[in-house]
This record gives sequence, C-alpha cells and structure tokens, in this order.
Amino acid sequence: MPPPVSQSATARAAEVIARCQALARYSEDAGSLRRTFLSPPMRDCHQAIAGWLKPLGVVPTIDAAGNLRAVHPAATANAPALLLGSHLDTVPDAGAYDGMLGVVLAIALLEQLEGQRLPFAIEIIGFSEEEGVRFGIPFIGSRALVGRLDEELLGKRDPKGVSLREAIQNFGLDPSQLPAARLQYEKVLGYLEFHIEQGPVLETLGLPLAAVDAIVGQTRLAITFTGQANHAGTTPMNARRDALAGAAQWMVAVESEARRASGLVATVGSIRAYPGASNVIPGEVRLTLDVRHSSDEVRTEWVRRLTASALEVAARRGLGLDTATLLEQSAVVMDAVLTSEILSAVRASASTAHQMPSGAGHDAMILAERVPAAMIFLRSPGGTSHHPAESVLAEDVACAIESGLCLLRRLAASPRFLERTTRNRA
Amino acid sequence: MPPPVSQSATARAAEVIARCQALARYSEDAGSLRRTFLSPPMRDCHQAIAGWLKPLGVVPTIDAAGNLRAVHPAATANAPALLLGSHLDTVPDAGAYDGMLGVVLAIALLEQLEGQRLPFAIEIIGFSEEEGVRFGIPFIGSRALVGRLDEELLGKRDPKGVSLREAIQNFGLDPSQLPAARLQYEKVLGYLEFHIEQGPVLETLGLPLAAVDAIVGQTRLAITFTGQANHAGTTPMNARRDALAGAAQWMVAVESEARRASGLVATVGSIRAYPGASNVIPGEVRLTLDVRHSSDEVRTEWVRRLTASALEVAARRGLGLDTATLLEQSAVVMDAVLTSEILSAVRASASTAHQMPSGAGHDAMILAERVPAAMIFLRSPGGTSHHPAESVLAEDVACAIESGLCLLRRLAASPRFLERTTRNRA
Repeated sequence: MPPPVSQSATARAAEVIARCQALARYSEDAGSLRRTFLSPPMRDCHQAIAGWLKPLGVVPTIDAAGNLRAVHPAATANAPALLLGSHLDTVPDAGAYDGMLGVVLAIALLEQLEGQRLPFAIEIIGFSEEEGVRFGIPFIGSRALVGRLDEELLGKRDPKGVSLREAIQNFGLDPSQLPAARLQYEKVLGYLEFHIEQGPVLETLGLPLAAVDAIVGQTRLAITFTGQANHAGTTPMNARRDALAGAAQWMVAVESEARRASGLVATVGSIRAYPGASNVIPGEVRLTLDVRHSSDEVRTEWVRRLTASALEVAARRGLGLDTATLLEQSAVVMDAVLTSEILSAVRASASTAHQMPSGAGHDAMILAERVPAAMIFLRSPGGTSHHPAESVLAEDVACAIESGLCLLRRLAASPRFLERTTRNRA
Repeated sequence: MPPPVSQSATARAAEVIARCQALARYSEDAGSLRRTFLSPPMRDCHQAIAGWLKPLGVVPTIDAAGNLRAVHPAATANAPALLLGSHLDTVPDAGAYDGMLGVVLAIALLEQLEGQRLPFAIEIIGFSEEEGVRFGIPFIGSRALVGRLDEELLGKRDPKGVSLREAIQNFGLDPSQLPAARLQYEKVLGYLEFHIEQGPVLETLGLPLAAVDAIVGQTRLAITFTGQANHAGTTPMNARRDALAGAAQWMVAVESEARRASGLVATVGSIRAYPGASNVIPGEVRLTLDVRHSSDEVRTEWVRRLTASALEVAARRGLGLDTATLLEQSAVVMDAVLTSEILSAVRASASTAHQMPSGAGHDAMILAERVPAAMIFLRSPGGTSHHPAESVLAEDVACAIESGLCLLRRLAASPRFLERTTRNRA
C-alpha cells in the first residue's frame, strides 16, 4: 500500500483544479472555451499564471513563439534545467484540463518545494500552441524550442488570412527573436509533461497515474473503392458493383482484425458515398483509415494486412481500389531513465506503477527529438476529452503532486540523471 | 421463332434513333443534354416533333402544363382514344432515349399505320416533366392529366426562385387552362408507354422487349446509429461505441439478406459519419435505405426484417438507433388486359414474351390511377441510363415497332378492349 496522500497535497490539488477552471474562463467564445494560438484571451491566461508565480519570486517571460517560460533557479549557478510543462491553447468547446493541467501542476510542484533549490533549475513552459486549431498545424510552441518554427511555417495563414508571422507581431512579439526561443540543449536535463490520458485505460484499471513509455506511431490512409453507380430500383442485387457494400464488408474486417492485435487501434473516421443519393447505388466511396501502435513494426505490418484485406474485398467484387498515405509518423519512445524514475516515484508515493503508450500526440513528442522527454498521465473520468465535460479527480491530482515531488527529489539525488550529458540529437 | 423483322420496321428504327439523337441536341447546357421543365430548348423539341407529325396531317397542341398532345383520329367520330407517350424532359448530363424514345416511337407507329384509321383515336403525349429536376418534384406533366397539378404544386419554386406557375406563364401558357388539360376518362381506353429498361435484366436474358407487369413499391428510410465520438488514438478497440462500425455490420447484413429475397432490391445510397474527422471515432452515422419490390407485402416484410436487424446490431453494440420513413409508395399494377395483349403481340412479332416489374417510377404509374395503363421496356445495353452513354439497339427498336403495330391491330380487333368502359377511379 502506498502511503496516504498528505494534507498539503490534497489542499494543493484543490487549488490546481480551481486554477484550471479559472484559466478555462479566458476564451474567444462566449459560453464555451476556445483559446487558440496567441488569441487575446491567451494574454489573460499569461497574466493569471504570472500572478501565481509572483509569490515564488519567479517572473515569467513570453518567448517569440508566444510560449510562457518561467525559471526557478538551481542551487548553483549555471546548472542545467529540467523542463516542466504542457500547452495553454485549446480546441473549440474544450474542457479545462487538456494542456492547462500540466502547466498548473508544474507551478504546484514549485510551490510544494517551498523555496527549496535543487541541483538543477526548473523551467516551467506553457506552450502557446499544440492543438493545431488556428493554422491547421499542431505543436507550433514546441517546434520553436527545437528550431522547427521555420519560414515556411511562419508564412501559413489562418482562416482569416492572418499569417503566423503576423499573429506573432499582432500579439506584440518579434519573430526575429525566434532563435532566442530555442533550447540550449547542453543545458537541458530533460522534459517532463503531466497530461490527462484522454482515454479510458486508467479508469478501467482503477489507477490514478501512468508513466507514458511511448507516443504511438500513426499511419493515415485515404482509401477509395470504385464500383458502378446505378439505379437503385432497376439494378438487381446480383448485377451490382456497389462501392459502399464493398467498403462495409472491409470495415467489418478492419474492426475484427484490429481487435485481435494487442495495443492496435484502427479507425474509419470519415466516409462519403458518391453520388450520394438515396436512390442511386454508390459508384464510389472515399474513407479514411487511422492505424496506431507503439511499435512501428507492428503498425506497418497491420497496415499491410488491412490494405491487403481491402484489395481482396475489391477483387472479389470487381471494384477498383486506390490507397494513398496521408500521414506516416513513427512512434516516439520516451526517455528510459526519466520513465524508470517516474515509475519508482509513483510506486513510492501513490499507487501501482503502470506503463502505457499514448495514443495521442503531445508536445513531449516534439521535445523528444532533442532532449530526454517523459510523460505522466492522469486518469480521465469516462475517457472524456475535447469536451466541456472533461475532468480530473481531485485525489488523482493529489497523487500527481506527491509523485511529482517525489520524482523531483529522486532526480535531485540521482547521479545517472544529473551526470549524463544531454543527448544532442541535432 | 418469331417472323423476321420487316425491312420497313428496320428503316423506321434507324429513323427513330436519328430523331432521338436530334432531340438530344436541344439542351440547356453546351456539350451535354439537360432539358428541364419548360426550359427554352423544350420549344425547339416541340417544333421538331410538329415537323415530323405534319406529313401525317396531325397538328400538335401544347396544353397548359406544357405537354405536347397530338391526336390521330379514329375511323369514327367520338370514338375513345388510346394514349401513347412518354416524357420529353431529361436529367442533367442525360442520354438520348430516356423518355424521348417513347414519344418518337409513338410517332413511328402512326407512320407505320400509313393513314389507316382504327376504331379508336391515338393521342400522342410528350410529357413536359417526369424527372423532377427543376422543381424537385417528378411527374408534373402526367399529374396535370389526372388533375393533380394543384395550387400547392403551382406555388413550388425552382432554385432560381421561379414558381411553377410563373414557369408556365414564361413559356407563354395559361395556368388557368389547366382543367382543360385533364383527361376525359370516359373517352380514354388506356395509356401505353414505351421506355428503355434502364437496368440490365433484358440484356442478361438476351431479349429485346418486355411487358411491365407492375411498377415496384418503394420504402425509403433515414437511419441513424448513435454511439460515442472519441479519440481514435486513445480509445482501445474494446472500449469503443463506434457508430460506423455498427452501420458497416448492418450494411453487410442488408446486402446478404436482400440477395436471398427474389426480386427485392435494397440500397444504402447515402452515408455520413459525424464528426467525420479521420482521427475521431464516429459518434453518429446517418444513412438512407431504399427498398423496392413489386409486392407490397413482400416489401413491407423485408423492411421489417432489415429494421429488426439494425436494432439487433445496435443493441449488441450499445448503440442508439433511430429510423424514420421518408417515403412509402405502393406498387402499381399495370392493366392486365393491355399487358396480356402486349405479351401476345411481342410473342407474335418479335421474340419470347417476358414480363418484369419496373424498378423505377414512370408516367404510367400516375396515369394508372385513372386509366388502364401498360408499359413496354426496350433492352438497355449495359443497363446504362441517366448518362450520355445511354443507348438502344436498332434491332430492338425495330422489334418494338413491329410489336407495337401488331398490338395496335390486335387492340383494334379486341372486343374485350374496345367494349370495356374506362375505369373511372376518381
């Protein structure tokens, strides 16, 4: 049995939840939460966070990509830093915890340190953009830290025609200062992100927390079945080449095969039949297939099998089949040292230590290109996310605070963490 | 073996095909055929037909619904009439035979009579509207003949905001004369329509013609499966309530069950998944089901079974199911006397006599409400229709002319046809 959660962590957890709910009121929309990249309410969000950091003697800055950055100094000058953060932007009609919770928890950990300095600095980062809502491209904030906010990206325009560069300027920031936003890798020990799971796994297991061992790789395909459009009344069943009937047969196969493969998810999220009239047999069906797994090898093999199954269905029915790869993203493995320390900290302070892959992308995926990165998931009641009903349990937040504090202390005492040179993966 | 087709019918068939192709040039669109209700090219179409009728001494009129009507008199005054016709409007990107062929064949039959008068008049009708393209409502022309072109229908507007009443006036016609367009049922012996099959049945059987015994009844349902939208990456396969996976399983069942029922067709023509993003598990799927059969009892029973199967799939998967009936149309049986005479005429002059239901609606369906109606289908190569590649075989048109002439002569000599009182179904 883990030790009971301290009264201090319990009180702090209540405050964390209240702060997330406070940030959720800074919205572009009346009555619901939407806070996209450098929109006006992002400024209110930054001010609120600055207010919470003030008693700690920490003054945040906003870098040229709009990321909030706040450094709690180390015990010694020139010590490297552990980065702690998540994102401050949201999807439309969002909940109060996706992203924000990771930033607010980082502040709570500083508060729990009560002024104590560690052998490393702690830099809190509130990323300006992770969801990809405004410019259709996610991870703008974390890309800036690894030098991937380039000219091409700066030229992208939002639906109102405002370029990313102009959005930065309109917020009062200077795009020419973007190089200064980049991490100095040799001064970074690692990146740690708390985030809600956004899925039902921890709830099903009855656990508050998990260490994320990998962010799954993803293949996204556009698939077209082509048959023969024809009159729904005059064409007997045995004389049809119905593209939708073929697609349906294949979708049934996708679901049943994906259920057989441990850890695999396969989803047809979008489908259209053409011409799409109720009295015309569909001559063409276009759909998408999203396949994810933490092993690239397993994912690639299943994409091959599911594509082969589509070909087989099409051949048997005299249909044409076209497949195009829209996205092919490798899995990103989290740092083994940090992850093992997370597991030990969770085991010591909170509960059973569980490891799981993340099925969604996170800023940690971008940071992991350059620095050791790790994540801690908090249980998502009902698996609900990207919805106003998104929530966290106060007791899970308290566990996260206890485990996080335990983790910071373990890292502070860990030679293998402190002494390793930050991998420069440039 | 039927007698060989006469040289006269063969030559007439070539002319019929040439005339259909000539009419296909009167179009609203450059480079493709579209001729909707009382559009300007309809006037050219009427003039061409008037030109072909002139040598026969027949002068057509245009009734207040825009139908072309031309009477070839009977041998005696005040004799009742046999109506012969089809429609002159087309779908967009149409072929040259759907509708037009029936009108042009009627003229060809008059020509084959070489001035001979029968005990009944022959009234050729070129209906102004059957496809429902301009006002979204089909059968405008034939509705006028049975008194169903009412005030409500006259108030309907096309996409440009022109009402049906205004469209009639713009063509130079007078809506107040609509009552005069109605049939005097006591003077009508029946209605006969030649039409292309628009399906593959006759081609599969290797036959040129068929008598239509019924126009199938139709049920159209809107069906909604409701599950739970969720993240495609973070929701394991066994924790999903995927509305599209459920819909797919049901669509497979619809196809396999419909294949078991003789003469039944069941079609899912339209499908949408919501929210419809590639990375979101569909929380809702809306689709249509079109079910047709020549027996209302059989159709109703299968609609019940297919709906029960949807309920079963939904229940097994924890999905919601909603079904709404969009259309419920009874089968229309063609007149038994006329159909039996058609079968005898086809047998005597052309080929094996085949009977089949029509899976599509036709003007004969509307006329059948009030007068004995019958149809003759011509083979559709490739089953192709509503497409520029729509065609007929010259030899099938010659067969239709031979059979049609034989039919007219049989009817002229048939006491049970001539002496029966026209059913007044008012």
